Amino acid sequence: MKVEYINPFITSVVSVYDTMLGCSLTRGKPYLREKNAPPHEVSGIIGLSGKAKGTVVLCLSEKVAIKSTEAFLGEPCSEMSSEVADAIGELTNIIAGGAKAQLEELHLSVSLPNVIIGRGYTVDFPKSVAPVCIPFESPWGPVIVELGLVDVPQDAQATV
Amino acid sequence: MKVEYINPFITSVVSVYDTMLGCSLTRGKPYLREKNAPPHEVSGIIGLSGKAKGTVVLCLSEKVAIKSTEAFLGEPCSEMSSEVADAIGELTNIIAGGAKAQLEELHLSVSLPNVIIGRGYTVDFPKSVAPVCIPFESPWGPVIVELGLVDVPQDAQATV
Repeated sequence: MKVEYINPFITSVVSVYDTMLGCSLTRGKPYLREKNAPPHEVSGIIGLSGKAKGTVVLCLSEKVAIKSTEAFLGEPCSEMSSEVADAIGELTNIIAGGAKAQLEELHLSVSLPNVIIGRGYTVDFPKSVAPVCIPFESPWGPVIVELGLVDVPQDAQATV
Repeated sequence: MKVEYINPFITSVVSVYDTMLGCSLTRGKPYLREKNAPPHEVSGIIGLSGKAKGTVVLCLSEKVAIKSTEAFLGEPCSEMSSEVADAIGELTNIIAGGAKAQLEELHLSVSLPNVIIGRGYTVDFPKSVAPVCIPFESPWGPVIVELGLVDVPQDAQATV
């Protein structure tokens, strides 16, 4: 994955958390995601396609997902519910949209977000992709963004 | 979701299982997916975007995922492994590609597949989507395809 694809996602996550949730994120050092990545609790996942294709995953603990939902909706939310799933899906969508706008040359389009909730599941990427984890610290706890985005060969662009 | 979007996915799943895995699927009756859908074990998930956008999820038990991998790779596979994740991701990709080819008028492009593995997790769709479950029976056990695909408003197509 090209390093220059990472920054637009960092900028977008920080900006969305700051302006929409009033939550300041501190970025850690991005690292290559291992095959057996730590299990997630709440994952907002959305596909990207265009001159590159891939996936962005917004990974949160239940606590951070609930806090993010409260800030997003502007109302209290004490437990995991379909409201949390909807809010995290919408946040994932907005984050992907913000990054897409900065990667105009890739003519990306985004799919619909899905939100996966549970304990101890893993999310695998195709072995041809070397996804990157971008860790952030927030006052609510860690926020991790996983990004796998690979160029589509030019002769395949007409058919994908 | 338009009913006419469902059939290309049915045809594609049946054809991929038949020609690539030598496995004959019998289709059950599609139904609207409830919010609290039963938990999955292995889910291949891929995004679609174009004049419509959405997600296809190929949902399998571990047993069916392993049997599908064995047939796909043509070699024995006794347990869940990264090979299974890769094979189910690739099958999901091929199924989405097959349906896309039948929905030419939507100019769909597909993202990269991800595979979610675990016990008891749920996969939520945005509340604006009414995803459909398409159940199939196979000699290995049930295969379920979940599809959420909604039209993109024409004035938004330039920006998505």
